[in-house]
Amino acid sequence: MAGSSVTPTNVPVGVLGATGTVGQRFIKLIALHPYFRLHALGASARSAGQPYHKAVAGRWKQTTPIPQAARDLIVHACVPEPFQGCAIIFSGLDADVAGDVESAFRRAEHAVFSNAKNHRRDPQTPLVVPLVNPSHLSLIPYQRSIQSPPLQKGFIVTNANCSTTGLVVPLTALEKAYGPLDAVMVTTMQAISGAGYPGVPSLDIMDNVVPYIGGEEEKLEWETSKILGGITLDGTTFDLHAESPLRVSAACNRVPVMEGHTETVSVRFTKRPPPTPQQVRETLEAFTCAAQAPLCVPSAPKQAIFVHEEIDRPQPRLDRDFQNGAGVNVGRIRECPVLDVKFVVLSNNVAIGAATSSIMNAEIAIAMGLVSL
Amino acid sequence: MAGSSVTPTNVPVGVLGATGTVGQRFIKLIALHPYFRLHALGASARSAGQPYHKAVAGRWKQTTPIPQAARDLIVHACVPEPFQGCAIIFSGLDADVAGDVESAFRRAEHAVFSNAKNHRRDPQTPLVVPLVNPSHLSLIPYQRSIQSPPLQKGFIVTNANCSTTGLVVPLTALEKAYGPLDAVMVTTMQAISGAGYPGVPSLDIMDNVVPYIGGEEEKLEWETSKILGGITLDGTTFDLHAESPLRVSAACNRVPVMEGHTETVSVRFTKRPPPTPQQVRETLEAFTCAAQAPLCVPSAPKQAIFVHEEIDRPQPRLDRDFQNGAGVNVGRIRECPVLDVKFVVLSNNVAIGAATSSIMNAEIAIAMGLVSL
Amino acid sequence: MAGSSVTPTNVPVGVLGATGTVGQRFIKLIALHPYFRLHALGASARSAGQPYHKAVAGRWKQTTPIPQAARDLIVHACVPEPFQGCAIIFSGLDADVAGDVESAFRRAEHAVFSNAKNHRRDPQTPLVVPLVNPSHLSLIPYQRSIQSPPLQKGFIVTNANCSTTGLVVPLTALEKAYGPLDAVMVTTMQAISGAGYPGVPSLDIMDNVVPYIGGEEEKLEWETSKILGGITLDGTTFDLHAESPLRVSAACNRVPVMEGHTETVSVRFTKRPPPTPQQVRETLEAFTCAAQAPLCVPSAPKQAIFVHEEIDRPQPRLDRDFQNGAGVNVGRIRECPVLDVKFVVLSNNVAIGAATSSIMNAEIAIAMGLVSL
Amino acid sequence: MAGSSVTPTNVPVGVLGATGTVGQRFIKLIALHPYFRLHALGASARSAGQPYHKAVAGRWKQTTPIPQAARDLIVHACVPEPFQGCAIIFSGLDADVAGDVESAFRRAEHAVFSNAKNHRRDPQTPLVVPLVNPSHLSLIPYQRSIQSPPLQKGFIVTNANCSTTGLVVPLTALEKAYGPLDAVMVTTMQAISGAGYPGVPSLDIMDNVVPYIGGEEEKLEWETSKILGGITLDGTTFDLHAESPLRVSAACNRVPVMEGHTETVSVRFTKRPPPTPQQVRETLEAFTCAAQAPLCVPSAPKQAIFVHEEIDRPQPRLDRDFQNGAGVNVGRIRECPVLDVKFVVLSNNVAIGAATSSIMNAEIAIAMGLVSL
Repeated sequence: MAGSSVTPTNVPVGVLGATGTVGQRFIKLIALHPYFRLHALGASARSAGQPYHKAVAGRWKQTTPIPQAARDLIVHACVPEPFQGCAIIFSGLDADVAGDVESAFRRAEHAVFSNAKNHRRDPQTPLVVPLVNPSHLSLIPYQRSIQSPPLQKGFIVTNANCSTTGLVVPLTALEKAYGPLDAVMVTTMQAISGAGYPGVPSLDIMDNVVPYIGGEEEKLEWETSKILGGITLDGTTFDLHAESPLRVSAACNRVPVMEGHTETVSVRFTKRPPPTPQQVRETLEAFTCAAQAPLCVPSAPKQAIFVHEEIDRPQPRLDRDFQNGAGVNVGRIRECPVLDVKFVVLSNNVAIGAATSSIMNAEIAIAMGLVSL
Repeated sequence: MAGSSVTPTNVPVGVLGATGTVGQRFIKLIALHPYFRLHALGASARSAGQPYHKAVAGRWKQTTPIPQAARDLIVHACVPEPFQGCAIIFSGLDADVAGDVESAFRRAEHAVFSNAKNHRRDPQTPLVVPLVNPSHLSLIPYQRSIQSPPLQKGFIVTNANCSTTGLVVPLTALEKAYGPLDAVMVTTMQAISGAGYPGVPSLDIMDNVVPYIGGEEEKLEWETSKILGGITLDGTTFDLHAESPLRVSAACNRVPVMEGHTETVSVRFTKRPPPTPQQVRETLEAFTCAAQAPLCVPSAPKQAIFVHEEIDRPQPRLDRDFQNGAGVNVGRIRECPVLDVKFVVLSNNVAIGAATSSIMNAEIAIAMGLVSL
Repeated sequence: MAGSSVTPTNVPVGVLGATGTVGQRFIKLIALHPYFRLHALGASARSAGQPYHKAVAGRWKQTTPIPQAARDLIVHACVPEPFQGCAIIFSGLDADVAGDVESAFRRAEHAVFSNAKNHRRDPQTPLVVPLVNPSHLSLIPYQRSIQSPPLQKGFIVTNANCSTTGLVVPLTALEKAYGPLDAVMVTTMQAISGAGYPGVPSLDIMDNVVPYIGGEEEKLEWETSKILGGITLDGTTFDLHAESPLRVSAACNRVPVMEGHTETVSVRFTKRPPPTPQQVRETLEAFTCAAQAPLCVPSAPKQAIFVHEEIDRPQPRLDRDFQNGAGVNVGRIRECPVLDVKFVVLSNNVAIGAATSSIMNAEIAIAMGLVSL
Repeated sequence: MAGSSVTPTNVPVGVLGATGTVGQRFIKLIALHPYFRLHALGASARSAGQPYHKAVAGRWKQTTPIPQAARDLIVHACVPEPFQGCAIIFSGLDADVAGDVESAFRRAEHAVFSNAKNHRRDPQTPLVVPLVNPSHLSLIPYQRSIQSPPLQKGFIVTNANCSTTGLVVPLTALEKAYGPLDAVMVTTMQAISGAGYPGVPSLDIMDNVVPYIGGEEEKLEWETSKILGGITLDGTTFDLHAESPLRVSAACNRVPVMEGHTETVSVRFTKRPPPTPQQVRETLEAFTCAAQAPLCVPSAPKQAIFVHEEIDRPQPRLDRDFQNGAGVNVGRIRECPVLDVKFVVLSNNVAIGAATSSIMNAEIAIAMGLVSL
């Protein structure tokens, strides 16, 4: 995967779903980005025609003010025309509209990076966690070729569900070092921000745990195999970890935490004897990803996986903002009496688990020369 | 296990550690009990000599006032003499003193029912979850016989760690129906009340998950085998599930919940093929225990295991007080892609997980004729 | 106010808004009531025709199961016909529909006890806090007489906003003892359950205070004068404390508490010199209300105002369930350097602050002979 | 108040109480400071002799790692000798030891800036909120002169209690514009971080409000007059707002919020007629302080008071980190039916309410030429 030789400057981008939780996060990150520049915003028909600060009034839930670059941008409906000048489209749309809207933007020759679930299972749509499988972006030319009519520039890339993202980073590190995993058991304790706004009613979650999140366990179990798997030999789709089926069992819970998904994970290797906890620790600490080098994209964390030494870490409140939430935290690596090794994973669901992943995916696609600037 | 034919009346009991969290709960429950009567209270030297309401001033954390039966009882130091008139001693002592104090009370011919961990691993001390293994109380005569000098009436019975208690109730139901389990994986999300008072600092747990509780995983993994196991053929100790080793893997977390431990559980049976989720559901719903019948002790829940139908239950805030917290809640029974079946368990850590267990154990021991009234 | 000589038995009642938060509470309380019996339930058109347990599926948020008496009742639309057999109608309707629906039920000769705000400011509708101003119910005959056509049995009685209810109980005790108050300043810290379900999004209130509740300060400031005032000499309306204007200043806040509104209150008396804090304490402790005697209605608390001695009480979590939430808690009575005396009030917003008040109002109206049974 | 003409560079500072909550915050801020440099750390005898990262292990509760500048500094006991090279001493000591230790450091000719309460009421010790009364620092020479023996360089300056700090900033703006205030009523809703670590037990504050904080109301009521008052004509002490006595009435509450004290405030002016809410708003927005200009100290906020327009702001979670917590937030300015005007104040109790104030006070004292560098 060769990086492009020049850093781009001043890349105009559009944000769909700009008034929602993920959209706000896109705007906040893009306002600080070294080369992305906010060019157009899209939201529901209700918001269209208003300046952004009015459209989002009473719903801006970030702890910093609305960026100047966004305040007075006029919000458009989510149709391609007003976004013509955008080299990149970031989609923070809700799943009830994301599917069709994103398809329309692709058809209009836009490079769409989506946080929505709608296209994740498409056989030719890369589902990319930027610290894990940027090589899947190489399917983009084929994706374009099979559209009708075939496209020159347009494509869709999705990033993973927030609870999947944290999990697959250490898993990929382990597979690279020790070969295919045989089984993974994971219990998640997920933050309320993962449900968007208004999201979880306070009466449902204060002083409580809700041991169910609709569709979440299925996503975690299915997406993991797509992300950790490869591309078929004929280069036309993803192999879903086919050469060595991976059993994943998830139990997903909502807990009264604002931000940061904590997951207890146990893994079984196919390799016998399996690596020791100490070997696993060294492997995770040493893990680096293409986003760091050779691609060196600006949103990549310095350290992809931070392994905590303290016995009671990682914790969401203390560790979620480390590296602006772009890395993954792991701790408590120890033997599992049932599978092989168990540990704790913490990732920031609104950073690497959402908008930061889309942005890093776009940075990577640019570095790989896949975006027409 | 034959029940005694008469219900006792007016059984005088003492409470050790009376000013602590578990002690307060003992007092609250005993004040409402059909035949136990508060007779003597013990606490630290600092409290000794004061009426209870003064000793506990500023530390009474129950949502009902101090019971009249306790208000003016003079608190004693935790030595046997002032407790002579007590037929039963309930110990809510902290682990740093419980070991020696409880031994001294046994030596003074007291029937001690302890919530502390100190004697749980003693080879002749029953570790009893009242809905699971009251048959272990039959080791009491042997326990007496090996004391030096041998005892006539004194003994110690312990109940289990709060996170173990919720787990072993459905596990025992499954083993009774389908034979020995092979493996159990459990992730706990434990309430702050499990740590006593002052316990967990608010700065550590608000908006947070702490993925570590000192010693908890070891307790969960070890106690499960003692409780689910039997008694050796020679009747001198417990077999620790020896005939079919049970692998238990626990990951214990503290979450911002006041009361009620939620646990995600996956099990593997030795029986192949294993029972289906639907069979597991029927088995759990049908489960009854000796405390219900034939013993019919007063604190036994009407239903030992309540199986929820709603997809998002059980939840600690909504379900922890059902049946005064004396039963166990189970929900979301489904296939596990890695082991066989997975489900969610919720139990009230301050009721069945602590004082209620000790009290039910005492009721059972009385019903079995093991206590000298 | 003479009580009726006989206790009624088996009074059929209807509940409007039965699937909502207040409606659920009505149902829970009525199922345990000595003489009210659930006869008919009303909810939105969407729920109509279904048995209650299906209509409320996924929305039942009480900590006890749906009462048997309600489970299989068929839910009706909120029109008078199916409620013909009801002697009492309790309304837990939302404000957007309560006004017209309640008027229609009155017109159909129903005795309506409403928790909604819509009719509270009607000049002939009693706004009754049962521990404070049941004498206002004497306007019911006049209310009937001015309807068109005049009614024989129908009327509407409202209870107060949840944050008003807690405040006016100690205030009325003080006015009875020391004459009119001159000024009241109150800052509320209100529980999320006051906002209904789904109500406050968790993202808005976890780790947060929201210093604004729409319309709440106006309600608190206006309702207080209506409730503490009397009836005009000609018996046709309420005098709104006219003989001695009462200035009330409120600052209302939402805090992350499930149940129980805490209020810091400072008062200034017209009487100079004002009573001392010790006199205020004795007055509040000694306060009794007509609901207790001579009316002796079943939902009246044993003690209308419980004055706490501990320096850090009342607290919502510890004190909200005292007397099933039917009384009011006061603590920290001390001098105010600006007004005269200040103290803390805690009341249960879902009990005395909502359904319990409606029910007690109905009990009182029956005891006063104002309801046709 | 003339600013010094040169910005200092590389000022060595010491931190007492370095392992505590306030000490950690000092270290975090100093590590990022343009001219302060960590030189020596002091803590209890238990920590002395260890490198800082070991002394603070398990107690570092900041969301960023321990700064490199502090990690390996050896912690000393809190005696002056090892701090000889420090030009400034910041004290985050607990009140039980701060009094004597700070006096000893002053005697050893150190410039001590303390966050502890012990010396706040000393007649010659400035109690300085940096946005309000830096002019009080002019009493430093007199403070030195009356020590025995008189000092050349040593002095103590304290900053205010965290709940006082937020309040006095808008109050001073109002007094500057409209003359002395007559009365202030304030109800606080204070974050748990104000109580240090371990501080408030989670069992006491989750799902709860505690309407009492020991000594807090007295501090708020007394400190306000010292800070808003001036210096006596003979220049030997503070006049405590003597020319126009100010009545302050406080009701202090702990709420389940991590950081940020919210206060509802009502004020009465001596000026009649009083200013309108709109005038108050303009006055607060226009307020600037000496720390901003002419002194231009580096930690001063760009805007001393930020007046929110949204009806439901300020809120602690959303607004506490604005300007790194160095300013004060005000909102909801409106008429008060009892006093004149009421509003909401939010300040960051661990920033401007604690360490940030000490640091800004030191910056100001340096700018005023009162510290020997």
